[in-house]
Amino acid sequence: MIFGVTMGDSSGVGPEIVVKAFQNGELRPHRVVVFGDYAVLERVNRQLGYQAPLRRAQSPADFQEGALNVRDLGLLRADDVRPCEISAASGAAAREYVVAATRAALAGEIAAMVTLPMNKEATQLSDPHFVGHTELIGALCGASDVTIMLVSDQLIVTHVSTHCSLREAIARVKQQRIRKILDLTSAAVARLKPNPRIAVAGLNPHAGENGLFGREEIEEIAPAVEWAKAQGMPVEGPLPPDTLFYLAVRRNRYDAIVCMYHDQGHVPLKLLDFEGGVNVALGLPIIRTSVDHGTAFDIAWKGVASTTSLIRALDLAVRLSLSPPD
Amino acid sequence: MIFGVTMGDSSGVGPEIVVKAFQNGELRPHRVVVFGDYAVLERVNRQLGYQAPLRRAQSPADFQEGALNVRDLGLLRADDVRPCEISAASGAAAREYVVAATRAALAGEIAAMVTLPMNKEATQLSDPHFVGHTELIGALCGASDVTIMLVSDQLIVTHVSTHCSLREAIARVKQQRIRKILDLTSAAVARLKPNPRIAVAGLNPHAGENGLFGREEIEEIAPAVEWAKAQGMPVEGPLPPDTLFYLAVRRNRYDAIVCMYHDQGHVPLKLLDFEGGVNVALGLPIIRTSVDHGTAFDIAWKGVASTTSLIRALDLAVRLSLSPPD
Repeated sequence: MIFGVTMGDSSGVGPEIVVKAFQNGELRPHRVVVFGDYAVLERVNRQLGYQAPLRRAQSPADFQEGALNVRDLGLLRADDVRPCEISAASGAAAREYVVAATRAALAGEIAAMVTLPMNKEATQLSDPHFVGHTELIGALCGASDVTIMLVSDQLIVTHVSTHCSLREAIARVKQQRIRKILDLTSAAVARLKPNPRIAVAGLNPHAGENGLFGREEIEEIAPAVEWAKAQGMPVEGPLPPDTLFYLAVRRNRYDAIVCMYHDQGHVPLKLLDFEGGVNVALGLPIIRTSVDHGTAFDIAWKGVASTTSLIRALDLAVRLSLSPPD
Repeated sequence: MIFGVTMGDSSGVGPEIVVKAFQNGELRPHRVVVFGDYAVLERVNRQLGYQAPLRRAQSPADFQEGALNVRDLGLLRADDVRPCEISAASGAAAREYVVAATRAALAGEIAAMVTLPMNKEATQLSDPHFVGHTELIGALCGASDVTIMLVSDQLIVTHVSTHCSLREAIARVKQQRIRKILDLTSAAVARLKPNPRIAVAGLNPHAGENGLFGREEIEEIAPAVEWAKAQGMPVEGPLPPDTLFYLAVRRNRYDAIVCMYHDQGHVPLKLLDFEGGVNVALGLPIIRTSVDHGTAFDIAWKGVASTTSLIRALDLAVRLSLSPPD
């Protein structure tokens, strides 16, 4: 099995992280191909004093053990790169690495793809409609109901909605959508944990306190949970968010929490594990994980960026690849 | 200085916690009077095998060192108590302890009051309009703009709104209200920390990402923060919630966070410190702190309830009493 890693925006920490991880021996257990620009990785090697043995591998047959294999898209020259700066060329190239890796995954050339960070603003300079990795990959796969699962050592969370206003997030708390997320979550968690226990958070304080503080729990969430239980999914809820996260993390009562909006899951997860979180896209026909950090222009091209999240994202991609759905 | 502790609902953990804390010597550094029923505390002593030297102290002049002083309201007999059950009599009595302590605080007989938990449902059996401690005390003090500050070892949070639906909470994110909370928060935090640093959380994911995910940050929160800065308050924001809590807690970048809704602050705080949190009411003419747990009927009258939150609430009441506002 070969795993694809997209290099991410060249102005950010992506290129150095993958080279550094190879240099540290952290990629070694797995067969990895970087989807990116050979010239940029060579510049990383030179500029930051790494000695990763780069090698072009334009098809799976070219893969060579012991080397850092690169699917070279040939889009950027070394001196096109503007470290730590927003660049239309780097943004456009980063998008192409993702397109190429997605196609390779769909074609079965790679078992899974792991993405390093893009810079939204940079990519929007050439593609004004670009929203993010997930939407781009979803569109390439023809998948409409994609969602992100965040995985840390202590907790797994999914979300009914993510990048929209809180007002819009409330409007999206609807039975159909919650059912879909429960379905995706319980299938994904089952691939990572035996006998998973999944809790569903309420939307309102105290999960609405029997309708006193909002009726979404009664009208939308509880019926979706009942439906999921009837399907045999190991779910429970809706539960008051402020005790639920405590119970899940400190009392080990649940493996995963289905959240009603972005910050409900992101705040506790990043508080517990800021650097080590990993994102998994659910609802795609391919396996895709992602680091849980951005391009970090403030520390890019200094060799100080942490490889932790990449390694965890790769490990998770491997685990998911080895544990196919029922 | 004498500090009042209300006994809370007799069916719950309140009575045993205050007796146990006395027995453990945890109340000793301070002069404490329990506002409650002598007969109930005597039953706790007998039933749970404590030997706290109870003594009636109906006025400050009656206070006796070395005893557990009780302002006996004489509302319940020992066999009126129904441990672990909702009881109209216990609910009504618990309300009266709070009324008596609030009046004593307003009269200057006690320096501050610390409240043990009431059971809302039980109190509503005799007072259908009862919402909670904070509203009751606010009404007795004639204070309209009361808010709760949660204090844990690692973080302090306040909220623009608390017990209302998330939809209603969004509607309450208004400049005037935020200004008021910033004002109350910065005055209160200044009494606990030298050179406090206060951050204001955004409402929306990524704090709205420049209006892309909601406009409350631009239209309501940022102008309130600018106003507060102009008044010399040490505030910063609005900041993306999912990195803000990490920065405050793990990087020690802020002492307090002003939150836009109940769970924004409650989820991370309870995750960090479920038992040790303390509530402080802001906007009252008196000092009032409260334990951060409920009546816990599931473990009441067994002698196992933790005294940690009571001791921290008392310590905080003492600190606030010793550090008067400018």
